[in-house]
Amino acid sequence: MSGEQEGIRYRRAQSVTRAEEIQAVKQKVRKSQPDKPIHKPRDSLLSWNSGFENFTGFVNWAFLLLSIGGLRLLLENFIKYGIRVDPVQWFYILTGQDEQGTEHPSIVLILYSVVPIIFCLLTEKALAVEIISRRMGMMMHVVNLLVLIFLPMVVIHYKDGFSLVGASTVTTLYSVLFLKLWSYVQVNLWCRNARQSSNNKSLRRQSLSYNNLPKDEDSNKNHKDSKDDLSNTERLLVQYPDNLNLRDLFYFLCAPTLCYELNFPRTERIRKRFLLKRIFEVLAGIQLILCIFQQYMIPSVKNSLIPFSNMDVALASERLLKLAIPNHLAWLCMFYILFNSWLNLLGEILHFADRNFYGDWWNANNIDTFWRTWNLPVHRWALRHLYFPLVELGYGKQVAGITVFFISAFFHEYMVSVPLKTYKIWAFMGMMGQIPLSNISKFMERSYGARMGNIVVWASLIIGQPLCIMMYYHDYVITHYGQSLLEDYGHV
Amino acid sequence: MSGEQEGIRYRRAQSVTRAEEIQAVKQKVRKSQPDKPIHKPRDSLLSWNSGFENFTGFVNWAFLLLSIGGLRLLLENFIKYGIRVDPVQWFYILTGQDEQGTEHPSIVLILYSVVPIIFCLLTEKALAVEIISRRMGMMMHVVNLLVLIFLPMVVIHYKDGFSLVGASTVTTLYSVLFLKLWSYVQVNLWCRNARQSSNNKSLRRQSLSYNNLPKDEDSNKNHKDSKDDLSNTERLLVQYPDNLNLRDLFYFLCAPTLCYELNFPRTERIRKRFLLKRIFEVLAGIQLILCIFQQYMIPSVKNSLIPFSNMDVALASERLLKLAIPNHLAWLCMFYILFNSWLNLLGEILHFADRNFYGDWWNANNIDTFWRTWNLPVHRWALRHLYFPLVELGYGKQVAGITVFFISAFFHEYMVSVPLKTYKIWAFMGMMGQIPLSNISKFMERSYGARMGNIVVWASLIIGQPLCIMMYYHDYVITHYGQSLLEDYGHV
Repeated sequence: MSGEQEGIRYRRAQSVTRAEEIQAVKQKVRKSQPDKPIHKPRDSLLSWNSGFENFTGFVNWAFLLLSIGGLRLLLENFIKYGIRVDPVQWFYILTGQDEQGTEHPSIVLILYSVVPIIFCLLTEKALAVEIISRRMGMMMHVVNLLVLIFLPMVVIHYKDGFSLVGASTVTTLYSVLFLKLWSYVQVNLWCRNARQSSNNKSLRRQSLSYNNLPKDEDSNKNHKDSKDDLSNTERLLVQYPDNLNLRDLFYFLCAPTLCYELNFPRTERIRKRFLLKRIFEVLAGIQLILCIFQQYMIPSVKNSLIPFSNMDVALASERLLKLAIPNHLAWLCMFYILFNSWLNLLGEILHFADRNFYGDWWNANNIDTFWRTWNLPVHRWALRHLYFPLVELGYGKQVAGITVFFISAFFHEYMVSVPLKTYKIWAFMGMMGQIPLSNISKFMERSYGARMGNIVVWASLIIGQPLCIMMYYHDYVITHYGQSLLEDYGHV
Repeated sequence: MSGEQEGIRYRRAQSVTRAEEIQAVKQKVRKSQPDKPIHKPRDSLLSWNSGFENFTGFVNWAFLLLSIGGLRLLLENFIKYGIRVDPVQWFYILTGQDEQGTEHPSIVLILYSVVPIIFCLLTEKALAVEIISRRMGMMMHVVNLLVLIFLPMVVIHYKDGFSLVGASTVTTLYSVLFLKLWSYVQVNLWCRNARQSSNNKSLRRQSLSYNNLPKDEDSNKNHKDSKDDLSNTERLLVQYPDNLNLRDLFYFLCAPTLCYELNFPRTERIRKRFLLKRIFEVLAGIQLILCIFQQYMIPSVKNSLIPFSNMDVALASERLLKLAIPNHLAWLCMFYILFNSWLNLLGEILHFADRNFYGDWWNANNIDTFWRTWNLPVHRWALRHLYFPLVELGYGKQVAGITVFFISAFFHEYMVSVPLKTYKIWAFMGMMGQIPLSNISKFMERSYGARMGNIVVWASLIIGQPLCIMMYYHDYVITHYGQSLLEDYGHV
């Protein structure tokens, strides 16, 4: 290695200063020669010795090549399939209307969700005024939440007439409600506990103050002053149990957060330009995602059926990679629309000031960091309402971490399997796959630097999702239309 | 705009410091509340107000997506065409052997190139010893060089049995020889002129020294000393006409430069590891390029024939973009192999120390910079032997620039049209297209920043070349196989 690293050495350059002098004079003389010399000893830029490191142009190159490749795929797709985008179909998909009937079981289920909400609020009110015992109240909450989460599973499974989008909306809504009500119940529990202990304390303090009379009047007065100041500002804040009303609960249910608290930070005014931009992004983004689905993903997924069944590795990989790119783009759009446009829109309308909905997961150097940063509402809920409470109860951090992970895996599975009515474990497996993946990405980060870790994260995002989608599609078709369809396809 | 730029303001924040105090106290009180608040006023990272700008992860994303897209195309290609790589065919292509006979007209032409070289050297020798007049010598050189450049044109056009690769090798070799001999002749002319003027000067000095006798002996002695020093080192350098020998000429002809000078900078030793790496790169790189050609470019180009003839814009564009990416990759490989591996290999063997074969053209922000940096041997030749001499002759810089541009266009056309025997002007038009393109890229650079200029340069590289290739291929097929083939294709 050293032989190459030393760069180009020149004749006589190794001899001492006398030689160098000669060299310098020679160079000077060479310059004055009549043959107008232009060559001088230099390394090529791409040689290691040159020390040249400016390759920023290749970043532009990569993005340009990516755009050109994308444009070509777009053209190829249009030539092959024509225009598949059909807004009429969107209407049917989005409203959950299909040929089978005019029932709207999804809408019924969505409207029904008010029931467990009211039930939860009433239970809390009963607990606040101590009509029912704490044990009884907690029992009622647990039953209410369990019914909330299992009701859609049962209804969607046994009742026909659910569209895929309708059923997905229902399971998403019920999942979110479950998390929000859990937070609501737990925060109110904290407040009740605090009220009780402060009552106990003030009782104790009263009994104490009778025993030890004030020694230092001045300090006591100061203390009282600052206490007054505190209670003055405390009066600006909503205090338990004043928060237990429908208005406050519905504000929380609409607010872009899963964590309840009594006094959310508020913005002063609604920025109209900001709001209009977010509304436009949501409307345009949904159209874009639907276009990507109809035009790119559905044909790719359909074409993948045979290779996946026949275990044709080359063809299946090709299909997988073909699906990967539009799927990934749709996911990116979905992320932006949901976490930036939609949640900011909600926040703006509701004067909700905390817009910290996602971190810079695109720079994540390992899978753990990605999971910690891409979905902050869920991440913060999991920390505040599952991880820390478990740790406080005396469980180890590892146990708490694993619990969070399994609950997360359950909800992933719930939001996919229930609408599809395909109780396969691909989403669950996908979540489980995160554990070895996390170790791989950390290993890559340690061994090959942060860049390599980031690439592993991106690769798992780009490849992992379409793999699960294909698995589900394959199983969905097999279970619902049987082997016969597969054979029909095989003959084409 | 200002409404959005100001970010999220909070209730009462506009009131004076008293309000801010309250806010601070309130925040403190909120922290101590039993509901464990976690929300605080913040903007989303992707909002303008957040000021967040770290998107380095997306650079990795782009490169990864590019690799995945490339991998898919690779798989698709193998599934569609099977393995097209056929080393046996390479042998035929590279040796220029084909079915028509065992003649090797390319090799004959390559060997014949010694004749103009020797003729050039003899003419120079004759000029040096003043056997022939300068006018006569220059006439002989001009005729020799013109014959040199037009001979392959005539022979390849009228003689059958040239393979495409053989004919390309011949035209490339003769082009390089033309430029090198031009440089050789011009440098020797400069030396002769210098010798003549110094003879005249020394004659004049002799006649002068008789008239004015030395007044200051000491200064004169000093002067003589430094002159002695100079002539000592000058003795280390080769002086005209000692350079006029076969060894020196052939060293120059083999050396990785187009600009002749009497004393090239030399390296001290051959770095064996460096040399082995370059040899490996050349061998592996040629295989890679041939694979790209056989497996990707030839099928794409063949499939483009019908859409280009029928002026089917969508299909033709799709074909063009499909061809663009392997073509561009092949071009990048070719650049690296030729300019880094091959020229460094030659330089290392010949102890040639100036390895400045290319600049950082990948960062070029406009087309002009690209042309000035991507091919330094030709660029330096054009400056030294065409541009500056023309300027010195009193022509304007613009005239000189245009002349360089046209000679460059001629050689591009020469090296493409002659081997293809298709005297269409696509390569020439491609060169002409650089003028408006240069203006566009400069406009983009000025209006949208350096990044945009760089993107225009890359786009012209990625799209421009395959467009020319398709034009040539189309015309080649039409002129050599006629309309009938096209119609045959049409029926398939």
